[in-house]
Amino acid sequence: MDIRSRLKKDMKKDVAKFLSSLDFDRYIFEADIDCNIAHVQMLAEENIIDVEIANKIIKTLKELKKKGIKALDLDPSLEDIHMAIENYVTSKIGEEAGFMHIGKSRNDQVVTDLRLALKSKIEKLCKKLLNLIYKISKLASKHKETVMVGYTHLQHAQPTTFAHYLLAYANSLKRDYERLKDTYKRIDINPLGSAAMTTTTFPINRKTTTKILGFSSYFENSIDAVSSRDFIAETIFDLAMLATNISRICEELILWSTYEFGLIEIGDEFCSTSSIMPQKKNPDVAEIIRAKSSNLYGDLMSVMSILKALPHSYNRDLQEVTPHLWNSVNTIEKIIDIMEGMLSSIKINKKRGIELAKSNFSVATDIADLIVKKRKLPFRVAHKIVGKLVSKCIDEGIKPSEINSKILDEVSKKVIGKKLNIKDEELKKVIDPFECIKQRNIVGGPSPKAVEKSIISLQKYVKNEYDRW
Amino acid sequence: MDIRSRLKKDMKKDVAKFLSSLDFDRYIFEADIDCNIAHVQMLAEENIIDVEIANKIIKTLKELKKKGIKALDLDPSLEDIHMAIENYVTSKIGEEAGFMHIGKSRNDQVVTDLRLALKSKIEKLCKKLLNLIYKISKLASKHKETVMVGYTHLQHAQPTTFAHYLLAYANSLKRDYERLKDTYKRIDINPLGSAAMTTTTFPINRKTTTKILGFSSYFENSIDAVSSRDFIAETIFDLAMLATNISRICEELILWSTYEFGLIEIGDEFCSTSSIMPQKKNPDVAEIIRAKSSNLYGDLMSVMSILKALPHSYNRDLQEVTPHLWNSVNTIEKIIDIMEGMLSSIKINKKRGIELAKSNFSVATDIADLIVKKRKLPFRVAHKIVGKLVSKCIDEGIKPSEINSKILDEVSKKVIGKKLNIKDEELKKVIDPFECIKQRNIVGGPSPKAVEKSIISLQKYVKNEYDRW
Amino acid sequence: MDIRSRLKKDMKKDVAKFLSSLDFDRYIFEADIDCNIAHVQMLAEENIIDVEIANKIIKTLKELKKKGIKALDLDPSLEDIHMAIENYVTSKIGEEAGFMHIGKSRNDQVVTDLRLALKSKIEKLCKKLLNLIYKISKLASKHKETVMVGYTHLQHAQPTTFAHYLLAYANSLKRDYERLKDTYKRIDINPLGSAAMTTTTFPINRKTTTKILGFSSYFENSIDAVSSRDFIAETIFDLAMLATNISRICEELILWSTYEFGLIEIGDEFCSTSSIMPQKKNPDVAEIIRAKSSNLYGDLMSVMSILKALPHSYNRDLQEVTPHLWNSVNTIEKIIDIMEGMLSSIKINKKRGIELAKSNFSVATDIADLIVKKRKLPFRVAHKIVGKLVSKCIDEGIKPSEINSKILDEVSKKVIGKKLNIKDEELKKVIDPFECIKQRNIVGGPSPKAVEKSIISLQKYVKNEYDRW
Amino acid sequence: MDIRSRLKKDMKKDVAKFLSSLDFDRYIFEADIDCNIAHVQMLAEENIIDVEIANKIIKTLKELKKKGIKALDLDPSLEDIHMAIENYVTSKIGEEAGFMHIGKSRNDQVVTDLRLALKSKIEKLCKKLLNLIYKISKLASKHKETVMVGYTHLQHAQPTTFAHYLLAYANSLKRDYERLKDTYKRIDINPLGSAAMTTTTFPINRKTTTKILGFSSYFENSIDAVSSRDFIAETIFDLAMLATNISRICEELILWSTYEFGLIEIGDEFCSTSSIMPQKKNPDVAEIIRAKSSNLYGDLMSVMSILKALPHSYNRDLQEVTPHLWNSVNTIEKIIDIMEGMLSSIKINKKRGIELAKSNFSVATDIADLIVKKRKLPFRVAHKIVGKLVSKCIDEGIKPSEINSKILDEVSKKVIGKKLNIKDEELKKVIDPFECIKQRNIVGGPSPKAVEKSIISLQKYVKNEYDRW
Repeated sequence: MDIRSRLKKDMKKDVAKFLSSLDFDRYIFEADIDCNIAHVQMLAEENIIDVEIANKIIKTLKELKKKGIKALDLDPSLEDIHMAIENYVTSKIGEEAGFMHIGKSRNDQVVTDLRLALKSKIEKLCKKLLNLIYKISKLASKHKETVMVGYTHLQHAQPTTFAHYLLAYANSLKRDYERLKDTYKRIDINPLGSAAMTTTTFPINRKTTTKILGFSSYFENSIDAVSSRDFIAETIFDLAMLATNISRICEELILWSTYEFGLIEIGDEFCSTSSIMPQKKNPDVAEIIRAKSSNLYGDLMSVMSILKALPHSYNRDLQEVTPHLWNSVNTIEKIIDIMEGMLSSIKINKKRGIELAKSNFSVATDIADLIVKKRKLPFRVAHKIVGKLVSKCIDEGIKPSEINSKILDEVSKKVIGKKLNIKDEELKKVIDPFECIKQRNIVGGPSPKAVEKSIISLQKYVKNEYDRW
Repeated sequence: MDIRSRLKKDMKKDVAKFLSSLDFDRYIFEADIDCNIAHVQMLAEENIIDVEIANKIIKTLKELKKKGIKALDLDPSLEDIHMAIENYVTSKIGEEAGFMHIGKSRNDQVVTDLRLALKSKIEKLCKKLLNLIYKISKLASKHKETVMVGYTHLQHAQPTTFAHYLLAYANSLKRDYERLKDTYKRIDINPLGSAAMTTTTFPINRKTTTKILGFSSYFENSIDAVSSRDFIAETIFDLAMLATNISRICEELILWSTYEFGLIEIGDEFCSTSSIMPQKKNPDVAEIIRAKSSNLYGDLMSVMSILKALPHSYNRDLQEVTPHLWNSVNTIEKIIDIMEGMLSSIKINKKRGIELAKSNFSVATDIADLIVKKRKLPFRVAHKIVGKLVSKCIDEGIKPSEINSKILDEVSKKVIGKKLNIKDEELKKVIDPFECIKQRNIVGGPSPKAVEKSIISLQKYVKNEYDRW
Repeated sequence: MDIRSRLKKDMKKDVAKFLSSLDFDRYIFEADIDCNIAHVQMLAEENIIDVEIANKIIKTLKELKKKGIKALDLDPSLEDIHMAIENYVTSKIGEEAGFMHIGKSRNDQVVTDLRLALKSKIEKLCKKLLNLIYKISKLASKHKETVMVGYTHLQHAQPTTFAHYLLAYANSLKRDYERLKDTYKRIDINPLGSAAMTTTTFPINRKTTTKILGFSSYFENSIDAVSSRDFIAETIFDLAMLATNISRICEELILWSTYEFGLIEIGDEFCSTSSIMPQKKNPDVAEIIRAKSSNLYGDLMSVMSILKALPHSYNRDLQEVTPHLWNSVNTIEKIIDIMEGMLSSIKINKKRGIELAKSNFSVATDIADLIVKKRKLPFRVAHKIVGKLVSKCIDEGIKPSEINSKILDEVSKKVIGKKLNIKDEELKKVIDPFECIKQRNIVGGPSPKAVEKSIISLQKYVKNEYDRW
Repeated sequence: MDIRSRLKKDMKKDVAKFLSSLDFDRYIFEADIDCNIAHVQMLAEENIIDVEIANKIIKTLKELKKKGIKALDLDPSLEDIHMAIENYVTSKIGEEAGFMHIGKSRNDQVVTDLRLALKSKIEKLCKKLLNLIYKISKLASKHKETVMVGYTHLQHAQPTTFAHYLLAYANSLKRDYERLKDTYKRIDINPLGSAAMTTTTFPINRKTTTKILGFSSYFENSIDAVSSRDFIAETIFDLAMLATNISRICEELILWSTYEFGLIEIGDEFCSTSSIMPQKKNPDVAEIIRAKSSNLYGDLMSVMSILKALPHSYNRDLQEVTPHLWNSVNTIEKIIDIMEGMLSSIKINKKRGIELAKSNFSVATDIADLIVKKRKLPFRVAHKIVGKLVSKCIDEGIKPSEINSKILDEVSKKVIGKKLNIKDEELKKVIDPFECIKQRNIVGGPSPKAVEKSIISLQKYVKNEYDRW
């Protein structure tokens, strides 16, 4: 069925191909059928079209859904999936197929399809993400006492555990999940019935299609309904933020599996080698994931700048928004799957962890804290003394484990003019990384007890949320 | 109080200046004081420091808050506002000021400050935005019968009203508001007590500071707490999306105030002229707002790419994230203020509105609908007939208002081989734009009744939400 | 031939697929063969491998080139095209194929391939672009006297011609061409021989492969050679800038073909209609092109943020850079092709052009100029008088063509206290848009003579440049 | 002098402030004066205005230039620097100042100013960049024999020298320099005389102003001249690319100064400490530079999306482009200055360099090469043997330095069924990292000789280029 009766020339093949959305319309094939069915069913219920015709159309649409997209003629001159499906129905039942399009335009249909298809994609992603969070929490529960040094500015900061780091990952991903859940509310709104932009003169019932299609609400302005793609930009932002948080994990996997850090080893099945250097074991998967987050930034930027300053209602520019959505969604889906496997494959070098925690004054804060507690000195004064102590140790080759009361008092006398008289046994205790960790028994802190509480609360959250969907 | 006791050389002036955050720390001056007060109060309550010392510190901090930021020495060598404030307290009460910093680091403090300051900014922005939505709804209520043509692809689509367009604006801004409200939840989480990254060995109480500072919850992992800036990226995205939606309004104001469209006139007080062309009246304000949305895309992109692949916990890179936040927040604040004034200044040319609605076949859908209704033809067939009808009219210079039964039947015979026999009086009715509008009495549609309902529901929403804050 | 002898587990299928570059390696299939041939030929010339073996390898590679990429086994476990090709050669001639990889790594090979393939793409694009510029200049030569109004801020500014606008397009595209030509120099550098990152212990001759492959120079540091992708970022920027300039043209085509402007009509074969509104003729092609420029911004942003802060030499992240390059190149290629056709299809409404030029005081600058010339008044004073004159005309409904000496003097008396006594016949002349145009006979201006000179110079440039390639 | 005679209301203060460009117009203060002087001088030469008036204007402008921008009234209601300067001249010499603006508009003037001001900024930046390259080459000449391991995928690849890495930095910066030099050509074009968009009816001479202002050429289309800002986008891209290359250096400085790598130590005067952890020495300067590159991506994205789909000639949106330019230029200027100091401050730990080069099989390629050379085996076979060898060594705890003929033959028998019989002394040689380096005496390679040649050629280039400016 040709809709170009007002125009005198057909499109050239290459122009039609340039314009066509058929390449990425496969993502909305099923949604488009569901949308058509709901619309036709409503038209019949409202006596706008004959029930018999409606039934014929619906039956044909259901058959098509079963057969799948391969049953369609996807010639670019058909422009898009909507016309291809209408064409299919026409080829099966003849001209009466033309009743499908009463009070409906591709403008409202495409955005209804996108919202339907995206809803089910987000649901899937949310579950996968919850699952990943759960797996990380399980891994954490094995490493509550696996000591390592925590880094700020990539320099040794304070002793902590591998579990504490893993929970940082899990908690950031939890926010990513919550963001997606909030966005879902704004996806789950029905635009159908807006037609081209001003609804229609037929007495359609938008509540009926909202119910059939399973939307929670409907658009309250028909121009807004066909104009808006903020739900896509928001989804891509959420996914880009999630990708960013995952890329930060990957950065650490890459760093920690260097020869120099030597903290972890990623499973061989997630590593590549070199075509020239036979000794190489490279963390390619982590690198690719790290890089792929940038692809989502590009998608986001493209979408924002397409939307910028676009007049309201439908402009064909909106078509170019869609491929960025599917690219982002698909990329993230793969990333989550691969991340889960890769994290499971990791071996942790506990010996190296404790070695690094002991070697480079990461307990300095604890020494300063001890001074404050024992001598009631202001923290700034204690900080100054320990700063000088570390400087002295480095200059004279004194190891952290060799720090004793005598050395501390030498420094103390220089800085504040008097000795501190802290006992060696007290010092010894704060110089032991695992003691430092155990003492940080504050909500959110690394002590095994605090970590245990965190894990329980997180796992409870994950289970509750999973059941929602 | 110098904290560089471990290092042997001071920073050069230009390096210190390059590193300093003092330029934009003014946004967190008050928050930083509040944060210090809450922390010191908790330290005293938990018997970690003496009540007397705590009171001295708190008193000095309160005095500073009253005096304002100008009371501080902002030398770049002090690095940031935290050190400047600590320095101030030290200068007033001496070394005991050093107790402030027990169990607290700039890493947790800066992000607590940012969250506090941003919370109050978002509250302000949300109210302004609700106010703008309300103003637009009021304007809409004046223009429920102001006819104009609706555009798709910037071509005449179907008749509608100015109110219908205005409500599209208002409804898109409503989603922007809801997004900000959701983001607020993720800003409103207390990181204080995370210290450098692993909490502290002092028995601090994070629930106490959460309560004093008015946060709804606290971070459940201390590494995550000091690492994460997703709340900033999310805020900037929200604002960028809002700016995009406003830029779309501006695009229409610019188009509609051209000589060619002639639909509206922006108030002289929002327009500029030319230094060479004396006749010019230019919509500069709308152009600047349109352009400024791009600035927020830049801010967003900068923030995302700073965060990408950054190892966890604090890295100095995070400092560069902050100016983008304040730039975005301030830009949007001004844009909302200016938009409100500009929209109020607009005069609508009702005559031109109806003239355009009548002149270019925007009622073609209604003719097709009429054919479907009267002759039970499938919509596609009716569409084809009307397409040919329009083509004929353009070729032969027939105006839309001159279409009658005879002309329609001529076309009909060619397309489907028979006449339609639709009465001229029926045709006349669908050829009148305002009749077309009135018939679109569907939820979200342009009929004055539907629009009235929309306005009432929107205004109710706005009032409810305003009272929340 | 398996290169994973150091690793103990194979990659899982889905991981291998996630990592594989085979999807977009088709763009470098031929380049990779050429690169291998040149390398092997050099190895033989330098007596590093036997001539006979070299000849066998080269013969097999040439056969493969003829057969095309379909002759390859593209299983993802092969990772990339380099391994697939090596595998092919091995399957044909056995283990001796392994000599191909002496002193060569995929690190230098992939970037050599990319540079080779891109060189030929850029050459093609440059020619297409020159051709487009030429076509625009031909179109301009037909419209040297086609009057229209020029716009600033989308408001009527001064009379000009369609040719003058077209030459603005052509001249901006000319800079885009020059930019690509400059970038070409930085693509045309040979990295081959850098191997993994430190060259090789075999006495290879990099000058030989540079010559065989037709590069103008070679990389002077082997780490830089395998690390750098700035040539890709630069190319994408060039193409994004070109897309931006083309999107600006499209914006005007869209505006000018609205009912309101009515200046041009795009050929039906470049327009779509609506599935619901039978009267629609939409400029979809121009809209899609306008939107596609955003895709290139995304590509650029992705590439920049992948490269940011990446350690030197090869990291797998670099693989993710490549698809953005080919996406940008292919998008632009199609855009240029389509633009040429679309521009040729445009009909210009000359009547409407002159009507608009006459209707809205676009000659105001000329009246002010006349006052300066005749009365030796400072331009600012003349500007003020004419500003008031226009304001009075709008208020009193006086058309530009009705302005006469009497009206001008009325205003003049109010503004400067005296009459100007400019003759009506002098005024008449400057009120005629075409006279205004003819008088702007300044280099770069709209007078038919100035435009003619511009066209000749531009066409000469295009011809010279075309012959270069 | 008020130019708003056509409008009836003044702008409100806050609107005027919102629109004003005065904040960043300080960058073009001098350029604007030069531009005015050149224009007025030309007007006098062409007898368009009286020489006496011209001289008065020029004299006043020169005085203003001497006094500096503080002599101006910068009230936002004046909109911009052009009006502020015109106002200044009027306040000094009265109404005759109004002759300045004959045949000139702010549209051509602002872009002339920007190009003039940018030309001198680029010249300065280019010299600074050449200087930085030179300093790096000097540093390299000290470290031609400073052994370290080269990394791919952040894993040990092959032995190289610190000089080889430094030259990679220098060579990538050299391309950044060349890019800026090419861009300079496209900045150095005079738009003056284009006036609002169609030149003028006054017989101005654009060649004269081109000569006076020192431009190399002039715009050949006046609409293009006032429309285009591609020179800004291109400059920002160049600077963003440069920032990217510098951020990659910073990434390595950060990595190499970790406790784990321990390869370098950045001078204390470029490091910060922690307010809580007294032992910290953090590479803050490198982190801030790394982060700042993202700011330039934001600037680039903002500019591109402002320009996208903007109609030709002047739109006020263009004003928002400018601050991004100056932000980028200023950021880079500071980065280059700071980088130079920081690089000079670095101490290299030669002992650690050689220790790492020896510890982890980075000589594996050399062993494979040796097998190829001695036994004429295909490289792939040798690669496989060495891969297994490394795997065995890791499993059995054999150090690279302990590899001998016997162990190799054990592996070889398993892989290819026979011994290799390579002498221990030959193996010893390729196991010594410095021997491996010396053997890579290929153009661009790490051998001290190859490096020396590279340095000489680079230094020669830098000197030649420096003299150009």
